[in-house]
Amino acid sequence: MRDVAVIGVGMNKWGELWEKSLRDIFVEAALAAIDDAGVDHLDSMTVGCMTGGLFVGQEHLGSLLADYLGYKNLPATRVESACASGGLAFRTAFIEVASGMSDIVLAGGVEKMTDVSGDGATYALATAADQEYEVFHGATFPGLYALMATAHMQKYGTTREMLSAVAVKNHFNGSMNPFAQYPFKTTREEVEGSVMVASPLRIMDCSPITDGAAAVILTTIDIAKKLGKPIIKIIGSGHATDSIALHSRDDMTTLLSTTVAAEKALKMAGKSIKDINFAEVHDCFTIAEIVVTESLGIFAPGKGGEAAVKGETGLEGSFPINTSGGLKSKGHPVGATGVAQVIEVVKQLRGTAENGRQLKKRPKIGMTQNMGGSGGSTLVHILEVA
Amino acid sequence: MRDVAVIGVGMNKWGELWEKSLRDIFVEAALAAIDDAGVDHLDSMTVGCMTGGLFVGQEHLGSLLADYLGYKNLPATRVESACASGGLAFRTAFIEVASGMSDIVLAGGVEKMTDVSGDGATYALATAADQEYEVFHGATFPGLYALMATAHMQKYGTTREMLSAVAVKNHFNGSMNPFAQYPFKTTREEVEGSVMVASPLRIMDCSPITDGAAAVILTTIDIAKKLGKPIIKIIGSGHATDSIALHSRDDMTTLLSTTVAAEKALKMAGKSIKDINFAEVHDCFTIAEIVVTESLGIFAPGKGGEAAVKGETGLEGSFPINTSGGLKSKGHPVGATGVAQVIEVVKQLRGTAENGRQLKKRPKIGMTQNMGGSGGSTLVHILEVA
Repeated sequence: MRDVAVIGVGMNKWGELWEKSLRDIFVEAALAAIDDAGVDHLDSMTVGCMTGGLFVGQEHLGSLLADYLGYKNLPATRVESACASGGLAFRTAFIEVASGMSDIVLAGGVEKMTDVSGDGATYALATAADQEYEVFHGATFPGLYALMATAHMQKYGTTREMLSAVAVKNHFNGSMNPFAQYPFKTTREEVEGSVMVASPLRIMDCSPITDGAAAVILTTIDIAKKLGKPIIKIIGSGHATDSIALHSRDDMTTLLSTTVAAEKALKMAGKSIKDINFAEVHDCFTIAEIVVTESLGIFAPGKGGEAAVKGETGLEGSFPINTSGGLKSKGHPVGATGVAQVIEVVKQLRGTAENGRQLKKRPKIGMTQNMGGSGGSTLVHILEVA
Repeated sequence: MRDVAVIGVGMNKWGELWEKSLRDIFVEAALAAIDDAGVDHLDSMTVGCMTGGLFVGQEHLGSLLADYLGYKNLPATRVESACASGGLAFRTAFIEVASGMSDIVLAGGVEKMTDVSGDGATYALATAADQEYEVFHGATFPGLYALMATAHMQKYGTTREMLSAVAVKNHFNGSMNPFAQYPFKTTREEVEGSVMVASPLRIMDCSPITDGAAAVILTTIDIAKKLGKPIIKIIGSGHATDSIALHSRDDMTTLLSTTVAAEKALKMAGKSIKDINFAEVHDCFTIAEIVVTESLGIFAPGKGGEAAVKGETGLEGSFPINTSGGLKSKGHPVGATGVAQVIEVVKQLRGTAENGRQLKKRPKIGMTQNMGGSGGSTLVHILEVA
């Protein structure tokens, strides 16, 4: 396999974008990434989108988006792994460059989630859960993560304060991200006074519904050197699945797909979790960030919440998590999230994270963890600055 | 890139399968392929499905299907390119084995299309067209292909008899396929007396709505040799897109994505179209088979219909097309079709096509052409018996 680098990144300003369509926001992000990379062509494209069918009545997204990007006849592959679709698009592009099939590949992600009425978004998102054994019986994702939170609290004594610490930290980081949907700071009091969604999760424990797109350009190390771009090398890629139905798992307080994907990525990179300087992880709910940091092995089981309260995951902590603001503040257009995580890691490794959220001690190695549903799939990637 | 072979194939009996769910039929096909290959494990899986969201309210299909297949934590990638999703799953698996990322990969496809009411299937399929510029204004696929047929008739003098010849030939072939949805023979009179759908296309010009799944196992040549399996090598893979909106193209009487994908696949294989012995092509409508055989360069522009009437595409013709019965008789579960095309090519190359449809002169090289929407994407693969 050939060595592969990320040489360009781009995204649009996320939010409720009533005036823009799915194709508009994808093209905006893709053009920004192409411009950042300075490439004069693409050999192929991958795009992560969870459910264009249910959100905007549009599938066949690879072809549509290649066409609107102006790349007639470009091979374009749309992939889906629920909320991990973006991470999967990145991995698919990585394998394509590594294989020798293509030299310059755009990996993008997009979701236009606000063009549905009533409970349309909840229904669309619920297709990431088990339709026959969860959704049919009324389960939704806030409900499923509330079960995980309750189990974690019971087993480990995780507290309301710990959940709040995640939300406060991520909104603080996101307040410095010009592309974030909700770039405001919040407080423990605001989080704990917000409306209840599914006990113990309140609205300020939940990531929002977002319209957004993100794109990165991958190529070989040789081409990256010729272009004179900063070389951010992909040194590890891990992909694992799990039962998508929560009740089919042995343990609701850990995420096995995340543990397995991280092990694979670390093995490929020849690193241990202690070699990683920071990570973007899938905080679709505050409890998710706590469980994920434990499942990745950053903190011991049951210690993720305490670490958040102590500031260990903050910008100046021992292991900064979600310097971008995470899904919580940046927003969560499901198909785009995994690609945007890569963008933040690239920015931190380049030393170009905006508005004061750049890590003081310049990091060398960063990780992304992008997760589908309640952990039915996970993509983990490790990137190192050359 | 490593050389890659197909060493196992499996599908279920296609039809309106009211008593089986999407996960049931996928597992049935996948187990048959695993059994045929004789492998003791999988390293990863790809699955093509057009719109599980709209047909059965289920996305996150890679994880769900890996779980139901009994492969806990298996990396599983769902891809979508409308009706070419199966061909794309095959290409994605091919690249994964070729890259060295995985040694044994299952490429599957599935669609459960009958679990919708009213015009649900027409709406779901229409998401392969341009929602904003075609579907919103009332276009459906029979209508779009009727436009192509009318244009082809006007430009080249293509006749009603030529369309009928395609349907009669494919049903004759399909009558010998034990997995076909409609394994009955038909006549020109029956075709031309069938109900009009979108002039000039009648119901017997259209492929049906189908529940079905298909799967194949890919591995390296070295592993295939160790297993002692017949080695069917993938010598060419081509992927191209086009505007998904028909009105955006220069010419409605040819399919540019098919021409470009075939050129790429032939170049990779180091072959010309004259080296190919037979092909499975995407006859979603009778006119499609005519236009595709021209776009592939098998027949000159405007000569595809005449070739069908003269029997050149029949089992004993100069270039047999759709020995399986094609989409017309075998059925068209959109995500599975491209994988089932590979199965027929493998059977013909092995000399094991059932019930008398095996080509008399044993073929050496076969081609598949799988197409999304009205040609917004095409996957072409070339397989050779070792």
